[in-house]
Amino acid sequence: MAQSGVTYPKGFTAAGVACGLKKNGHTDLAFIRSEAPATSAGIFTTNIVKGHSLQWSRKQIKGAVTSAIAINSGCANACVGEDGEKDAQAFAELVSHYADCPVQEVLIGSTGVIGYRLSLDKIALGLEKAAGEASADGGNSAAVAVMTTDTYEKEAQALLTINDYEIRIGGMAKGSGMIHPNMATMISVLTTDVAITPELLDKALKTTANLSFNRVSIDGDTSVCDKVLILANGMAGNPVIQEESEAYSLFTAALEKVSVELSKMLAQDGEGATKLLEFQLVGAEKQETAHQILNAVCKSPLVKTSFFGEDANWGRILTAAGYSGAVFNPDKVDIFLGSVQVCKNGCGLSFDEQEALHVLKEKEIVITINLNSGEFRDVMWTCDFSYDYVKINGSYRT
Amino acid sequence: MAQSGVTYPKGFTAAGVACGLKKNGHTDLAFIRSEAPATSAGIFTTNIVKGHSLQWSRKQIKGAVTSAIAINSGCANACVGEDGEKDAQAFAELVSHYADCPVQEVLIGSTGVIGYRLSLDKIALGLEKAAGEASADGGNSAAVAVMTTDTYEKEAQALLTINDYEIRIGGMAKGSGMIHPNMATMISVLTTDVAITPELLDKALKTTANLSFNRVSIDGDTSVCDKVLILANGMAGNPVIQEESEAYSLFTAALEKVSVELSKMLAQDGEGATKLLEFQLVGAEKQETAHQILNAVCKSPLVKTSFFGEDANWGRILTAAGYSGAVFNPDKVDIFLGSVQVCKNGCGLSFDEQEALHVLKEKEIVITINLNSGEFRDVMWTCDFSYDYVKINGSYRT
Repeated sequence: MAQSGVTYPKGFTAAGVACGLKKNGHTDLAFIRSEAPATSAGIFTTNIVKGHSLQWSRKQIKGAVTSAIAINSGCANACVGEDGEKDAQAFAELVSHYADCPVQEVLIGSTGVIGYRLSLDKIALGLEKAAGEASADGGNSAAVAVMTTDTYEKEAQALLTINDYEIRIGGMAKGSGMIHPNMATMISVLTTDVAITPELLDKALKTTANLSFNRVSIDGDTSVCDKVLILANGMAGNPVIQEESEAYSLFTAALEKVSVELSKMLAQDGEGATKLLEFQLVGAEKQETAHQILNAVCKSPLVKTSFFGEDANWGRILTAAGYSGAVFNPDKVDIFLGSVQVCKNGCGLSFDEQEALHVLKEKEIVITINLNSGEFRDVMWTCDFSYDYVKINGSYRT
Repeated sequence: MAQSGVTYPKGFTAAGVACGLKKNGHTDLAFIRSEAPATSAGIFTTNIVKGHSLQWSRKQIKGAVTSAIAINSGCANACVGEDGEKDAQAFAELVSHYADCPVQEVLIGSTGVIGYRLSLDKIALGLEKAAGEASADGGNSAAVAVMTTDTYEKEAQALLTINDYEIRIGGMAKGSGMIHPNMATMISVLTTDVAITPELLDKALKTTANLSFNRVSIDGDTSVCDKVLILANGMAGNPVIQEESEAYSLFTAALEKVSVELSKMLAQDGEGATKLLEFQLVGAEKQETAHQILNAVCKSPLVKTSFFGEDANWGRILTAAGYSGAVFNPDKVDIFLGSVQVCKNGCGLSFDEQEALHVLKEKEIVITINLNSGEFRDVMWTCDFSYDYVKINGSYRT
């Protein structure tokens, strides 16, 4: 296995193992180790209900450096009360033991079914195995181990040069239901060997997540275990990025590229998805307007089922925009499916159905909504809504 | 056919006919006539995009009395620009002609696909036929003619006595997708023979709609053609209700009963639905909290698919509450499926799976969420989310 994902940057090892949390025997524990204690930052779910493992990491990350991350799938460690808090603490202590680092340098995550206790015996066996196996080639197996209803593992990486120093960024993410802006049932870990201050790492993460992870919607649900973590271990040897210099801009642009790539994979692999939909909103009078409209359009089951059915039902897009809460003039709206204009000034055009069908049959479709009222724009990714979404979610727990 | 629905009260006739707007030859034009000009009131979609027929009626209804209503299915007369406005005007004039009443006493409605012009030739032929056929037994055929993806017609009626006067209330409604609080792809017409002032009729409609039609969610979408109209022709002969007296209370209670009955039918017959779900939220600190939580829970595709799968996945209910924007303490939440408690103080209980399955197999399920934090409560109706929802909506237009 080539170096990819979270082990693409220098000084990171990882492994994914099966410890028995998933009934089907698939790998369910990802372990990531940084050779040097890494500056870390995180973004966490905005859900008022928060998983216990997530809460533990959320407290831990403030001002801390991180040496090891462990994330299990198969059990969310959420909604089990004080037991869940104790289990999270015990989980972190086990990671500390097997990674041989202080517990203050540990971050943990859990994803899966809500309302069941985490089996610490299984976690302990898994961590022992994972710590033994962890290698610079293990990024891929870690990405596989965090999958729940994902159909493929999600990894991305980027290489950039800043003042002659080679900087690497890697990342992995899991979806794929319960996904909506401001964190969803997604967990992503980003790693880099850049040297950067904690403040700027935090800022870079927030800025780029807002342009990537927070622009993905699968079903409008946001979950209790969602987070994006980033570790920067400084092993590229570059002079520490201490201000919003050109080096910072280059790093942020590359981080955005990796994050957008992972985000598009999350949308593309949305539960039951057959198509990746990219909604471009242009010509808005305000940034807020663009965001409100995309938010409503990308959540609409009616819009999403019509793309599954390859039905050029643009009226549903305009309808969703209309109830989004955004203020705009519907009589100025143009809508394009790919390059086929289907609506002009809020009215239907008699477009070529065959040409539209040709666009709708693609696996990736760009839909453009032009409000013709200003200079602001926004983008959001989602997927279509298929029979399989219902099938997957009708029987997830049992 | 017995007198039912909109022709249940005295002095109303109706008919439903096929005029060729629906490709399958089903009836697609409903016509309702009041013998005496009726006091009328209406509630209209909050969508910023509004159908042309709806806009016409929305302007018309202010301070007007109404003698005739015509509603077509098969074409929404929406998003076709100035032509749509002209078509709405022409539609109303045709109704005025065939109903033999001033155009000021006409209300119209259209429901169906967005972006196509209404065929006035077909409407004219249909109106001629419907006006000829309209009878006191025609309520049912009118209810059938407004159906789109509904699987059955929706009618309800109530009889009450106020000061020895027999008062009748009847109603019909159509759904059944794109339904969400504050009007959806639903149209309802209520009729009554009570004598009441326009102000109190309007108040009674708004009050009861808020407890019924605005408490139904099918898929979170709200459409551009949705409205509830009420006509009160005074033919019961009661002294005009002029204040919020006991008579007003009795009338409002009966109107609420009819409206709730129609609303539950809308939810039960939601596109692809196999179950009616009634979500009861109790113990909220504020009214707003109860509403916000139910709104999120009833919209969640994850919640709705799990009921289709008869999977007691209560974690998704708590999750949806958590991202609803409402402020509450998740550690105090209890959740019941029917009478089976599955969550206590925000934690999972080890409930009897067989007992839960027994509840989940029912066609009507009451789910109770208790916040244990106050005295406010609310209720909302929705349905499960099935394969058929996707099937119906994947190919609605073509």
